[in-house]
Amino acid sequence: MSFKIENLFSTGLSTPVQPYKGFVKHNFVGGHNSEENIPIDKLAESAKRVISQEGKNLALYGHNSGPQGNISLRNFLVSYLKDYVGMEISSENILLTSGSLQALDLINKLLLDPEDTVLIEEASYGGAISRIKNIGAKPIGIKLDSEGICIENLIEILENLKAKNVFPKYLYTIPTVQNPTATIMPSERRLKLLEIAEKYNFIIFEDDCYADLTWERKRPNAIYSMCKNNRVVYCGSFSKSIAPALRVGYVVASWEVISQILAFKNDGGSGAIEQMLLADFCTNYYYKHVGQLVKDLQSKCDTLIKALEEEFGSIAEYEYPKGGIFLWITFPDNIDTNRLYTLAAEKNITLNPGSEWVCNSEKGNHKIRLCFAHPSKEIIKEGVSQLAQICFEEFGIPKISANIKR
Amino acid sequence: MSFKIENLFSTGLSTPVQPYKGFVKHNFVGGHNSEENIPIDKLAESAKRVISQEGKNLALYGHNSGPQGNISLRNFLVSYLKDYVGMEISSENILLTSGSLQALDLINKLLLDPEDTVLIEEASYGGAISRIKNIGAKPIGIKLDSEGICIENLIEILENLKAKNVFPKYLYTIPTVQNPTATIMPSERRLKLLEIAEKYNFIIFEDDCYADLTWERKRPNAIYSMCKNNRVVYCGSFSKSIAPALRVGYVVASWEVISQILAFKNDGGSGAIEQMLLADFCTNYYYKHVGQLVKDLQSKCDTLIKALEEEFGSIAEYEYPKGGIFLWITFPDNIDTNRLYTLAAEKNITLNPGSEWVCNSEKGNHKIRLCFAHPSKEIIKEGVSQLAQICFEEFGIPKISANIKR
Repeated sequence: MSFKIENLFSTGLSTPVQPYKGFVKHNFVGGHNSEENIPIDKLAESAKRVISQEGKNLALYGHNSGPQGNISLRNFLVSYLKDYVGMEISSENILLTSGSLQALDLINKLLLDPEDTVLIEEASYGGAISRIKNIGAKPIGIKLDSEGICIENLIEILENLKAKNVFPKYLYTIPTVQNPTATIMPSERRLKLLEIAEKYNFIIFEDDCYADLTWERKRPNAIYSMCKNNRVVYCGSFSKSIAPALRVGYVVASWEVISQILAFKNDGGSGAIEQMLLADFCTNYYYKHVGQLVKDLQSKCDTLIKALEEEFGSIAEYEYPKGGIFLWITFPDNIDTNRLYTLAAEKNITLNPGSEWVCNSEKGNHKIRLCFAHPSKEIIKEGVSQLAQICFEEFGIPKISANIKR
Repeated sequence: MSFKIENLFSTGLSTPVQPYKGFVKHNFVGGHNSEENIPIDKLAESAKRVISQEGKNLALYGHNSGPQGNISLRNFLVSYLKDYVGMEISSENILLTSGSLQALDLINKLLLDPEDTVLIEEASYGGAISRIKNIGAKPIGIKLDSEGICIENLIEILENLKAKNVFPKYLYTIPTVQNPTATIMPSERRLKLLEIAEKYNFIIFEDDCYADLTWERKRPNAIYSMCKNNRVVYCGSFSKSIAPALRVGYVVASWEVISQILAFKNDGGSGAIEQMLLADFCTNYYYKHVGQLVKDLQSKCDTLIKALEEEFGSIAEYEYPKGGIFLWITFPDNIDTNRLYTLAAEKNITLNPGSEWVCNSEKGNHKIRLCFAHPSKEIIKEGVSQLAQICFEEFGIPKISANIKR
């Protein structure tokens, strides 16, 4: 009798993955950082120091800091978020999580029932969109312009929903270095959002995961900081500012939210060593490290844009990013980016097709997101050139390459 | 207008937690280790070495090892599980997780739909029982004796279920250093379990989280190793053998299982630094470290048992543990251990009431679980003495204390 364990699996599972084969040479996918920008020596030094000094706390779940996570790292965040983000909080408002993805899961579990409606920027983080859908809730996309969420469109949608007796639970927004558009929402619009949230009684879920990476290292204060009645739930991460393989993110919220999340965060706490290590590293080096990092990122961004200008000319449209690691590119209607994604992958170039990064997947069919943080400048140029060649062979455009006809 | 965010929470949430106030002096709860048994110097040294040598991999999600986790740690486990547990596997059969609690969540998500039936040892890990219930599945307790699951009772229950057309998805078992009973299931019974699993077509979920901590550092081979057709899914952890605040556990299973779990393990990977660190530490020091640790644990276990004999005499019943960190104690029927738990907590003594560690909570009303790994021998003696005093004041027994009438 041959036994197939698959016959006993639960219902509704998606396709199994293929074995991991490593990343390709021209890697523009996801949110990877570059090897050169990992502060290895300082991280190694911090790790040795904190384990020597505080390693005995590892004997306890919560390493003597309780279920909210390392108290030194929370204290660093209290001070950092005050200075850089304008937030007045205490360590009891912070919950350290296993990456900001766990923060998303926890907040969704706190707020969403199946069939709930959620407002979300029409182009947004794919993992946020898929999580909402996986719960059985309904994400509704709001139009974006160069300053983030279009207020008029938001109100129109809210009125339409209200007419149908639908009241969204929350609005998910990445106001500072939006993913994928890399815009920054000005303060006035943030205040307006809060007003609307009051009027229509929804929660604002502010994701600030990329917010440290503004070119000028300045930014409007967080929406969280502008709210007087705890209507905002906030999350952040060290994945983009230090390293993605460090799985440390955080939720900032009122104690009502934190205490309720802790009642179901039954994972025995998030990893202690990474939290301890970050507490030491950040207290000593964070500002300086991020300052250097964004210089390199902007320079790579410029390389990418120059390469696109040379290889694609006017057929690749984008706004100049205000920070971050992504460029969001719109092509003409005859370039199908799902097809481009497949063809590029065959040539070992990976990118995110726009359809995965929008609420209504059809609206992403001519867009792509490129991450410029990981590849070197040489690889960026090579990759864009090859991408243009693939486009030309499949779709007939772009017809120029570095001002020479193909 | 006063805004209450609670009004927008999802349905079915449990009671929010109280703020963390630190652990009490007489801490017999959970699975804490002792500060003295954390190999701080070697961990600090390993951390510095691996971050210096491999820190650049942190730039990538999966740190160049893919979504299954650090390849060096997986390779260590392949070799360790062969030598110590008798398992013939390769690194593709291992998925590193954020503690074995994530392993439980992932396996449950893989296998269980609401309304499914699960077989489980009648006294078992509280977190496993509550997880099954939270999904809406039904755990059914199987009787235990000094060698683990009672085969006759298992067959009887399976026949009863079959008569009702109910076919359990899996049997969850902790065969080696069972939690809480600390028994070890002999090889013959493991083989018998496999036979029954074949006949009734259920999966065996073998949790070996405490299995490294046998007093003799010998144990029967894993059920996983005895199975010819991938019917067993296995999990383990470093929480008990190194430190609980290190959130590193693992699933071992066929590629059919691993590839399907990876399709929904959407957390960006489990923490890299702890995996890298453990890979280095374990390769160099694991056997020696665990050998020393279990000597200390057995010695503390003996201290606890001596204290119980002196303070409680014959009214505290237990089997001598075969390893691990827990003692499972049965009191006479007039000692209500839920009440004892509350009274003890008021005097800063924490313990696990039996009702949380059994499938049918009433069956635990006269039992407690004490963890002897964390407190010092002095604290163990003091705690047991105070516990006896609390019992005497509330329930009138034990009447003796160190052979002197109270």
